Amino acid sequence: MIICLDISYFGEPFSGFARQPGQLTVQGSLEEALKTIFAQDVETTCAGRTDAGVHARHQFVSFESSKEDVDLGKLKRSLDQLTHDDIHINSVEFKDDDFSARFSAKAREYSYFICNQDAPSLFMRNTSWYVAKALDVQSMQKAAQALRGEHDFKSFCVAKSAEDKTTMRNISNIEFVEHKIFDENIIEIKITGNAFLHSMVRTIVGTLLKIGLGQRDVSWIEDVLNACDRQAAGECAPAKGLVLMGVYY
Amino acid sequence: MIICLDISYFGEPFSGFARQPGQLTVQGSLEEALKTIFAQDVETTCAGRTDAGVHARHQFVSFESSKEDVDLGKLKRSLDQLTHDDIHINSVEFKDDDFSARFSAKAREYSYFICNQDAPSLFMRNTSWYVAKALDVQSMQKAAQALRGEHDFKSFCVAKSAEDKTTMRNISNIEFVEHKIFDENIIEIKITGNAFLHSMVRTIVGTLLKIGLGQRDVSWIEDVLNACDRQAAGECAPAKGLVLMGVYY
Repeated sequence: MIICLDISYFGEPFSGFARQPGQLTVQGSLEEALKTIFAQDVETTCAGRTDAGVHARHQFVSFESSKEDVDLGKLKRSLDQLTHDDIHINSVEFKDDDFSARFSAKAREYSYFICNQDAPSLFMRNTSWYVAKALDVQSMQKAAQALRGEHDFKSFCVAKSAEDKTTMRNISNIEFVEHKIFDENIIEIKITGNAFLHSMVRTIVGTLLKIGLGQRDVSWIEDVLNACDRQAAGECAPAKGLVLMGVYY
Repeated sequence: MIICLDISYFGEPFSGFARQPGQLTVQGSLEEALKTIFAQDVETTCAGRTDAGVHARHQFVSFESSKEDVDLGKLKRSLDQLTHDDIHINSVEFKDDDFSARFSAKAREYSYFICNQDAPSLFMRNTSWYVAKALDVQSMQKAAQALRGEHDFKSFCVAKSAEDKTTMRNISNIEFVEHKIFDENIIEIKITGNAFLHSMVRTIVGTLLKIGLGQRDVSWIEDVLNACDRQAAGECAPAKGLVLMGVYY
């Protein structure tokens, strides 16, 4: 019997999603709670492993339950109670035996939040990257279109991802939304793709930023893409601006 | 020489704006910093004294400077450095000798944020009131219109305000804005008035909530207003959803 959790977490206190001995991690907190509930070790798989400080609005986590008669409502309440306060359980579902939160996922959607105004924000400081200089959002939007479709994203990932069999990925959508809340100017960059390499979204944002700041032309993004070299891209944007927004199955 | 500060603060750590011995307050932190800078006691006045936990996006604070040759840029930087991390200095200005942040203010604008959805939000939990049941925003909007104009708001203030000479106040605008950010449903209630009684905005929100929940009819708000009795109104909404957004001079 496979069970899948839809969870949210506020990334600040965690050393990322993946369990690590002696560190507070999302997976560690979940698996500890599941061990208490099921009275045995439970191994979980997630849709997208997030780095230290990265948030999730809808992360999906699956595991095999040894018991057949699980009360899902009770499981949800127990997990909400037993896990760290910065983790919320949105819902709990039974899935077919061949389901995996990771391998069954068809696409992931991330949003990156930039706070773009004269003075830093007190209200959005933990969930956005503060950039003081006014960004040319139109140019960033134009440049971003070059990333749509199937490409080798080697320039946009850290060395670790070289271990991956391929650095080809497909970005199906990249769009910009501007928010005005608490009188703060927030730019949201929404990116949907079949899968993402390590640090890929944050490196895309760091690269688009150079164009938004006028340090590079719109067409530069294609040079970066074609270079297939991490040195060609911009810096990796800070973790706290990144949110895993959802997963499509 | 009068100097006026435009400041923001995140209310959570403070026991309100007004200085109180032995408590962390916004005014206490500001006056301590000003004492260090001017090497003497400085007494400040603000546009709207906020309660414990209430936030401000633009609060105005004025004081008389004994020195004539103040470098405003330097003052801003020193204050930002010396005050609590949850206080930001937006700007610093010289004003005419008859200026007072409190008495020269013509109107104050507050926003109250409600997070209205199935599950509590991790991303907006410190800056909104979580209400699980779906609110009838249209009815709340309709009811709110009865509050516009000059009225006796005695029903909407705590006993302390009975010390005030009059409980007549003028609300010039009350409007609703719906936000969708981090996939959270946020309802913002914006209220502008010449001045506000103690807990007035939060009691208005608590009263409108009963209408939004369908516990009271739209017309009930007029009964509450006419009663001139605090017992007639709804409960005071929590402090963390309230933000002083601006002051008009």
